[in-house]
Amino acid sequence: MSGEAFNWHWFIEWGTPTSAHMYGVKRVVYQGRSKYQDIMVAELYDVGKALILDGKTQSSLYDEFVYHEALVHPAMILHGSPEKVLILGGGEGATAREVLRFKSVKRVVMVDIDDEVIRVAKEYLPEWHQGAFDDPRLELLIMDGLKYVEEASEKFDVIIADLADPLEAGPAYKLYTKEYYEKLKNLLNPGGVFVTQATSPTLTTYTHAVILNTIRSVFKYASPYQAYVKSFDSTWGFVLASDDKDPASLTPERIDAYLAENVKGENRFYEGAIHAAMFTFPKYLRRKIEEVKDVATIDNPVFMPA
Amino acid sequence: MSGEAFNWHWFIEWGTPTSAHMYGVKRVVYQGRSKYQDIMVAELYDVGKALILDGKTQSSLYDEFVYHEALVHPAMILHGSPEKVLILGGGEGATAREVLRFKSVKRVVMVDIDDEVIRVAKEYLPEWHQGAFDDPRLELLIMDGLKYVEEASEKFDVIIADLADPLEAGPAYKLYTKEYYEKLKNLLNPGGVFVTQATSPTLTTYTHAVILNTIRSVFKYASPYQAYVKSFDSTWGFVLASDDKDPASLTPERIDAYLAENVKGENRFYEGAIHAAMFTFPKYLRRKIEEVKDVATIDNPVFMPA
Amino acid sequence: MSGEAFNWHWFIEWGTPTSAHMYGVKRVVYQGRSKYQDIMVAELYDVGKALILDGKTQSSLYDEFVYHEALVHPAMILHGSPEKVLILGGGEGATAREVLRFKSVKRVVMVDIDDEVIRVAKEYLPEWHQGAFDDPRLELLIMDGLKYVEEASEKFDVIIADLADPLEAGPAYKLYTKEYYEKLKNLLNPGGVFVTQATSPTLTTYTHAVILNTIRSVFKYASPYQAYVKSFDSTWGFVLASDDKDPASLTPERIDAYLAENVKGENRFYEGAIHAAMFTFPKYLRRKIEEVKDVATIDNPVFMPA
Amino acid sequence: MSGEAFNWHWFIEWGTPTSAHMYGVKRVVYQGRSKYQDIMVAELYDVGKALILDGKTQSSLYDEFVYHEALVHPAMILHGSPEKVLILGGGEGATAREVLRFKSVKRVVMVDIDDEVIRVAKEYLPEWHQGAFDDPRLELLIMDGLKYVEEASEKFDVIIADLADPLEAGPAYKLYTKEYYEKLKNLLNPGGVFVTQATSPTLTTYTHAVILNTIRSVFKYASPYQAYVKSFDSTWGFVLASDDKDPASLTPERIDAYLAENVKGENRFYEGAIHAAMFTFPKYLRRKIEEVKDVATIDNPVFMPA
Repeated sequence: MSGEAFNWHWFIEWGTPTSAHMYGVKRVVYQGRSKYQDIMVAELYDVGKALILDGKTQSSLYDEFVYHEALVHPAMILHGSPEKVLILGGGEGATAREVLRFKSVKRVVMVDIDDEVIRVAKEYLPEWHQGAFDDPRLELLIMDGLKYVEEASEKFDVIIADLADPLEAGPAYKLYTKEYYEKLKNLLNPGGVFVTQATSPTLTTYTHAVILNTIRSVFKYASPYQAYVKSFDSTWGFVLASDDKDPASLTPERIDAYLAENVKGENRFYEGAIHAAMFTFPKYLRRKIEEVKDVATIDNPVFMPA
Repeated sequence: MSGEAFNWHWFIEWGTPTSAHMYGVKRVVYQGRSKYQDIMVAELYDVGKALILDGKTQSSLYDEFVYHEALVHPAMILHGSPEKVLILGGGEGATAREVLRFKSVKRVVMVDIDDEVIRVAKEYLPEWHQGAFDDPRLELLIMDGLKYVEEASEKFDVIIADLADPLEAGPAYKLYTKEYYEKLKNLLNPGGVFVTQATSPTLTTYTHAVILNTIRSVFKYASPYQAYVKSFDSTWGFVLASDDKDPASLTPERIDAYLAENVKGENRFYEGAIHAAMFTFPKYLRRKIEEVKDVATIDNPVFMPA
Repeated sequence: MSGEAFNWHWFIEWGTPTSAHMYGVKRVVYQGRSKYQDIMVAELYDVGKALILDGKTQSSLYDEFVYHEALVHPAMILHGSPEKVLILGGGEGATAREVLRFKSVKRVVMVDIDDEVIRVAKEYLPEWHQGAFDDPRLELLIMDGLKYVEEASEKFDVIIADLADPLEAGPAYKLYTKEYYEKLKNLLNPGGVFVTQATSPTLTTYTHAVILNTIRSVFKYASPYQAYVKSFDSTWGFVLASDDKDPASLTPERIDAYLAENVKGENRFYEGAIHAAMFTFPKYLRRKIEEVKDVATIDNPVFMPA
Repeated sequence: MSGEAFNWHWFIEWGTPTSAHMYGVKRVVYQGRSKYQDIMVAELYDVGKALILDGKTQSSLYDEFVYHEALVHPAMILHGSPEKVLILGGGEGATAREVLRFKSVKRVVMVDIDDEVIRVAKEYLPEWHQGAFDDPRLELLIMDGLKYVEEASEKFDVIIADLADPLEAGPAYKLYTKEYYEKLKNLLNPGGVFVTQATSPTLTTYTHAVILNTIRSVFKYASPYQAYVKSFDSTWGFVLASDDKDPASLTPERIDAYLAENVKGENRFYEGAIHAAMFTFPKYLRRKIEEVKDVATIDNPVFMPA
């Protein structure tokens, strides 16, 4: 493709109403619309193949492993011997892929509302799921994560929320409330660990802070962490929580030893050294986050800025 | 598709290095690359399905008929009874479609360099060609228009140049030179008429003016005209030329009568009244064009601004 | 400024929610906010200095005269000997400038709501007003055009509406209703002529058509016309109306003779030949406009698409 | 400013030819052109007032302190008692500001090629320099950093290169070569420390890696580090080098103690904990960087991708 030709087909992702980033589109691999959202798989310049839902990059080949290792590994290692894991969302199959790499795992329940995303992932994102959907340990339920948690009685060692952002327009915001986190906690075994994506601490500091505060109001321990994800052009945030296990107990040595013994294959991002960096927020950002006191409830939820 | 969802997938077309227009992309219907260019067929918001070559809109469903009727009809009617027509370029098949509507036409030779564009047009642009490629009067030659004109001995009543713009990067600029027009003229029967697209008089005034001057240096009569094409977000220019027939002889009455008697089907754009409007340039633009004295030759060609 | 440097500072004007055009910004000359709107004067690439209100180009040096001559001259010449003229809006002062060029004019009342736009025009847009604000025949009233028309008793020969588009967010939509046009008609002397800008027939065909229908429901004669304005990247529409004078009576010969005798200075755009072109709509657009039957009233107004 | 009004005035910064980020422009504070570059000071949405040179954000109020503390503090503390400091570039005055906060500093020589940038910084960026230009310890030389280093005989404890990126178009690339670094090293006192900005390790990995390799070929110790700078929508890279002092000797405890005793005022970003995070690169990025073996020389320099 000539130097002149690239600059006419663009994906523009809005971080806020007044900022965006743009990637040149090399090729649209798939596009469609499910009951819930617009789905596009496209090869982007600079970051490679990417899954885009309602105009938001879910992950790209360049660094999907950064997001998925960062989401999954700290919670799993903090638990120590997770056998049963619940994944809320995670349509690409890469969260399941990472969970299934842990040798102790015997059963994974994955609850995703959109079977069309699953179908697209199975067909177009093999580099993501790497066969995870075929693993006999995985049970895939197509249903609303809200409903699942209302009705479920099964208990889990680790619960991983890999959900869409709490947009005002959609229903996902209910999955970021104190009420919902309390129900989730009831599904945890003793010693259980919860982790969630928590929007970008730098792009949407307030939203991130409210998610953190809300989880803190429910769990004894709740630690925010972040990783730079080039595909998102920003750092991405997570919150790791437990009633029994203090995230501060995760030392680089313990992490590296655990990965070597208890996890199949090799990580591309997560390891002891980067763990410490992920849990260290710069001072100015800690302060901005600490200034926020709000907690999200069903009657007073938190939204992404629009 | 929700109101929020549309604004992340864009086609940006650069009119000059410092201006562009953007259309939201609803769906990419086809994309690929031939030996010569990037080819995309996409459904755009506001203008519908469009053929885009190397990032340049060739035409869209909204008003492809404006461009194609404007290109074909004045030359054909000026001739009066065209039997043999040569089309240079015109890959969508819509130029051929318009030519074949003229009842007098017995033979059309269409010379296009890129058989991949033809294949894409046949499959994805049926609204454009409307079966023209299957008309037994049409002979399609896949070859360089430069080479065809060097080697051809057949003569034509009307020659229509529906070619890519004279970009510095590509070979098409040679098809906009005095030397080339002289060779083309040799392929015209007595009473023959030549017409070419001539870039936008408003966006690229200098380029348009040089094309006009160059044709004027070869033909006795040469008249510029233009039509507003919303898909291009500008007016588009053409030059109508002949050694024998004065474009000024085309009156609205003669045009409407000719269309009624000698052309199958109904026009959506071209008719007597709009003909007069097309050949009337606003005063300030006439002056800008008249200020340009250059003529394009092989050694001193004209390019699009870059 | 180097070839690399231009491409980072942009003005993006949205024609519809799914289309826009972009011009590189060479220099911001003025920016501020009045009680009513954001005001920017900027030197843009390709079209030169431009006045931009709430992100909408009002006019640019490249072709402000196209818009202003097109708005003013047909109405004035149709009247034949206008002495008293009312301008609603027209903050740049260029509409007044054109009106004041007509030798018969004895008094112009200009009613604009935003004195900050006037102040900016006086200081930064001398090429537009060319001293019109200092002409003793001009009376400038800073007030709402709605209120003026409610309270006025003075009668005029020509009324020119050079108003902002009927956005749903702003109050201007009330100035595009049947009720308002009826009040305006009461301010016309016998033989009086009304003209208004009427949004782009190509970008916002429905809105243009409703404005036309609404004026037709009030005046005996109402003719739409348009001119291509490169700064707007589209054609722009107007409606010329009268109870006594048929726009069809304006022949090229009459126009050119009138301009030569009764108007000071030389036009850069408007003349007899282009008049005919302006009043000729292409067939497909005539049909789209004819399909619209709605009339705008205070209770059922027309808006720009959003 | 209304929700509708923000989206028409944009700053688009190109990270690579196929990616960019966009910030809405609230207000242009200053714009002009020096002998060397386009200079703009603008208030951007999301990140506040920013200095933009040739379309590249130098720093913004939101996090200029991240960049400047990250650039200055590790080198100064690694040295331990810097008295004489050379700054190459650093026009905003914020690098000097940070250097002057170190109590041991007796003399700072700042060499910047563009006095117009200095003038603009003095007038429009008081939050950056905070009076640094008036500190009697600072000597400001307006000259080419290349020439200064050729001619200088004075020796320094710390040299800080706060220079423009090595664009192919400009002369700055010569300041990123082995030959230049060797000359710089000759200006260091025994125990001296050198630090430079080193482009984004994530956006322009190759360029960053070559800068690192080149410095490694000249100094005994050379450590890369990075910090996420939201204004740049990416992490930014630096290289810290010395022949005598190993960056690995900087422990969080030593840093925090040093800051408390030897630096005036309080940091907003840099401290012991974040230092460790900054020097920890994720595994996949370490590998990408390690794959690059090239070293930049005058005859074989490194450029930013274009």
